[in-house]
Amino acid sequence: MSTSVEIICVGTELLIGQTLNTNAHWLAKIITTLGLNVYRITNIADDIDEIADTLQEALHRKPRFIITTGGLGPTFDDKTLEGIAKGLNREIKINDGALKMIEKTYSKYVEERLIDKVELTPPRIKMAKLPEGAKPLPNPIGTAPGVLMEHEGITIIALPGVPSEMEAIFDESVAPILKKAAGDATFFETSIHVLGVMESDIAPLIDQVMHNNPYVYIKSHPGREGEKPRLELNLTTTAKDLKLAKNRVGKALVEITELVQQKGGKIRSSKEVKEA
Amino acid sequence: MSTSVEIICVGTELLIGQTLNTNAHWLAKIITTLGLNVYRITNIADDIDEIADTLQEALHRKPRFIITTGGLGPTFDDKTLEGIAKGLNREIKINDGALKMIEKTYSKYVEERLIDKVELTPPRIKMAKLPEGAKPLPNPIGTAPGVLMEHEGITIIALPGVPSEMEAIFDESVAPILKKAAGDATFFETSIHVLGVMESDIAPLIDQVMHNNPYVYIKSHPGREGEKPRLELNLTTTAKDLKLAKNRVGKALVEITELVQQKGGKIRSSKEVKEA
Repeated sequence: MSTSVEIICVGTELLIGQTLNTNAHWLAKIITTLGLNVYRITNIADDIDEIADTLQEALHRKPRFIITTGGLGPTFDDKTLEGIAKGLNREIKINDGALKMIEKTYSKYVEERLIDKVELTPPRIKMAKLPEGAKPLPNPIGTAPGVLMEHEGITIIALPGVPSEMEAIFDESVAPILKKAAGDATFFETSIHVLGVMESDIAPLIDQVMHNNPYVYIKSHPGREGEKPRLELNLTTTAKDLKLAKNRVGKALVEITELVQQKGGKIRSSKEVKEA
Repeated sequence: MSTSVEIICVGTELLIGQTLNTNAHWLAKIITTLGLNVYRITNIADDIDEIADTLQEALHRKPRFIITTGGLGPTFDDKTLEGIAKGLNREIKINDGALKMIEKTYSKYVEERLIDKVELTPPRIKMAKLPEGAKPLPNPIGTAPGVLMEHEGITIIALPGVPSEMEAIFDESVAPILKKAAGDATFFETSIHVLGVMESDIAPLIDQVMHNNPYVYIKSHPGREGEKPRLELNLTTTAKDLKLAKNRVGKALVEITELVQQKGGKIRSSKEVKEA
């Protein structure tokens, strides 16, 4: 089964540089760790047509999952579900399950004396308007539910933009679904630091080790080349179990270490570099 | 003249959650402040076909500028220029200007006794291989030059992924070009905090003020709804001069303040909230 994931982050605040997109970073890390493959992250504005177009483009690439963040709240600029409905050519209508979740949250606010009574005003009802056939996902710490939809074998999951709410819904309702889709696939990574050799001299060594180890991906991250030749090498793989993943990365690590030392370079673990 | 900008960030490290994409955030903020409009940010892997496809998709949307980050270095996984060349259907070949810039940088490293002599090894020459017709942009603090290309009225600019190098090339060579394209357009934003009213109750007030002030965009950013109803409202506009921009935002600010106070809410400036 394909385990590819596409992330679409909706929010004009990301495009004007007001907000750093930590949601995409958090999701990319956890999804990768669960053994799936994030292959594109797109940031777009709070615009129905832009959301619909971006969703359709993603659907054409046929990932297993599309996860959106942002735009589920009560204000006029929360347009993600309308955009998804348009992209899927579905009606948007009040979902009873979602409405119950929202009512329950406001009842809790009444109990906590934050508000006097539960009033389901139009902006609050808006959060229960989902594309037809969608399933609401409980929001353990906020109001707007997450939303799950199926479309031609692709699962589309809409999460809120507030990081704590996004993470809570993901942990409770989304992670188990992704884990199941990933099967036993396990991601493993390790990093080493190379001192005293320039990136341009290490490039052919990495080529050679990657060629010998087709399942291991090695990426080099330079410090400022020249001043102090220092380089971080990040070795990653996804394998059917952790032992195999570690063996693969271990073999590549030994090979690159030998080649770097032949060039006069030094290898340091990330731990040693942090403590230095 | 259109002043829309699309950003494409190339780097598998962004998709496995190893690196937080601060480059996109930095670029989005400065480009917006220069008076241009970033309307999409895409993160993709170090893959020639993926880079070519993403570039072509962006070209179809006809922005004024496409800016890429990452993938200009000497290693095998630096594939951005090959991907762009494929996307533009151009040959990739050694650019004399770029080669001179690279030679000069390594000569400086020799003077600083970081290396013994200037050797233009294949990985170093790789950084001078640009799509035909491209212009190198000097890298004041690193090795790989930035790259500028024109294609059917769209300017494509490739910047390195190391933040300090990306920012240095942007400030020196890219900002003046964008500023010129923006003309006198000026971006202005301000934020206020609303206490004591829930986001779902403020939603219709924002709608009303946005309707009365078509050039002002108001976005609400909730704290945890319920527990402590607190909301940040961000008001933004782009106008032909700063005075007009401030007048527009000011008028909308007065209107939203009055409506919030009628609902029993309190308004605090961002400064007051920070100091509290």
